[in-house]
Amino acid sequence: MKQVTIIGIGLIGGSFALDLKQHLPGVSISGIDQNEAHLNTALKLGIIDQVGAFDQLKKADLVVVAIPVNSAIRVLPEVLDLIADHTVVIDMGSTKAGICNAVASHPRRANFLATHPIAGTEFSGPSAAMKGLFENKTNIICELDSTLPHLSEAVLTLFKTLGMHLRFMAAKAHDKHIAYVSHLSHISAFMLGKTVIDKEKNERDIFDMAGSGFESTVRLAKSSPDMWTPIFEQNKTNVIETLNEYIQNLNQFKAYMEQDDFEAVYNEMKNTNHIKQILKGIA
Amino acid sequence: MKQVTIIGIGLIGGSFALDLKQHLPGVSISGIDQNEAHLNTALKLGIIDQVGAFDQLKKADLVVVAIPVNSAIRVLPEVLDLIADHTVVIDMGSTKAGICNAVASHPRRANFLATHPIAGTEFSGPSAAMKGLFENKTNIICELDSTLPHLSEAVLTLFKTLGMHLRFMAAKAHDKHIAYVSHLSHISAFMLGKTVIDKEKNERDIFDMAGSGFESTVRLAKSSPDMWTPIFEQNKTNVIETLNEYIQNLNQFKAYMEQDDFEAVYNEMKNTNHIKQILKGIA
Repeated sequence: MKQVTIIGIGLIGGSFALDLKQHLPGVSISGIDQNEAHLNTALKLGIIDQVGAFDQLKKADLVVVAIPVNSAIRVLPEVLDLIADHTVVIDMGSTKAGICNAVASHPRRANFLATHPIAGTEFSGPSAAMKGLFENKTNIICELDSTLPHLSEAVLTLFKTLGMHLRFMAAKAHDKHIAYVSHLSHISAFMLGKTVIDKEKNERDIFDMAGSGFESTVRLAKSSPDMWTPIFEQNKTNVIETLNEYIQNLNQFKAYMEQDDFEAVYNEMKNTNHIKQILKGIA
Repeated sequence: MKQVTIIGIGLIGGSFALDLKQHLPGVSISGIDQNEAHLNTALKLGIIDQVGAFDQLKKADLVVVAIPVNSAIRVLPEVLDLIADHTVVIDMGSTKAGICNAVASHPRRANFLATHPIAGTEFSGPSAAMKGLFENKTNIICELDSTLPHLSEAVLTLFKTLGMHLRFMAAKAHDKHIAYVSHLSHISAFMLGKTVIDKEKNERDIFDMAGSGFESTVRLAKSSPDMWTPIFEQNKTNVIETLNEYIQNLNQFKAYMEQDDFEAVYNEMKNTNHIKQILKGIA
């Protein structure tokens, strides 16, 4: 893989480029991004070697699509139209069913591999890119059977070289599970931030009463709405299901408090403390 | 302050003891705890110099009450019954109105100072104690006027020596504000953990799909139910108010999704991104 084109030079695309440069000596990375300032930053930071173009995609060995998921659904079929036989195309989006669906009947479907590296921070753009972002992180590979074996093998080997652990899953199962362990956390944090900010408008200066606990719980509310709105749109049904369960649990907790049933309040927390053991398994 | 007695040698009491030893050379620290294993651990770790006793409290210059808030309400009047004229008693509980109320008409009220250092971790017990826990943290002092000036001055000087920033507030205002920036975060995290754990019972192995975002948002769900149940009980009215607003915001977000109003979803997140600036102000 000497010629790589990355479409979307943000936190994910940029970090992937930095890792490729470290692990694939001699690789040449072209960047495509509709944000010209991001392209210039990526050039200046040495994340990409040159600006790429769609009509040059046929020269690429690997094309990485790392843009918001609604854009990926639009762009991926166009990318597949333009590549060569030997090119492998991957996406890195946080939802997978809509993306796999968008290319399902494309003549070049077998040149595409759907991936979701569970990596990132609450920051965005090429200046947020960092080396080693993917090390020891899980990468969920969807619909592996739909990709030509020699192409998927090359990509999976690359992922392992970058230190990722691979999991294989159907796209629909991915979207259902990821709603619980990722999408719900974001809404939980955003709405916590909103609740406290709304209060602060009337009651000044409460934020210097906040400690590291609040900071940790609300951290994801810094995330980019440009990235997350399409994710919620793509995964609407699953996310609404998680929200229903979450709101039901909150209402139950509130009901216990209203009924002065603090034994039940205690048990709700005690039973959830089990999360300690679970979190130990997360890198 | 040569003779200090700490009632409750957990994370907070133990960390405070460690800082006292560093900043008050020659201090002698006695520990009281109904958990004998905790006392032994505290002795072994050098957190306390000896085991103390209630009938020795009259020898103390400073008595620190660092136990769950419901126990503090019960114990504080007994402590005030037993101290000498020169003794100052402080508590470090996460709610303040009930505690101030419990001692309001005590003959020794002026020997007591109500404090809430906004410091801690999700761990508990003396083995979780750490040096420097209070450095650069806010300590909220309530009802300062009710304490003898020379006693409160000595304590406030000590807090500043340990690196704390002081804020002064009425007990009721403290409880109302802290419900937003601390208590709600804990319920939000506990119920997020519960929602995902409940799901995992049926759908195995979803946790290796979780990343650092989930870990951060759910971190407080590791907290001790023994500490938090009494806090929710003490601050019931305020916490229920925050829960109502939080649940309302979650329902609104869900309604936007159900109505396919993703412009509103975007704006909800965009407006909350403002939390970035706010969090910069938190140590």
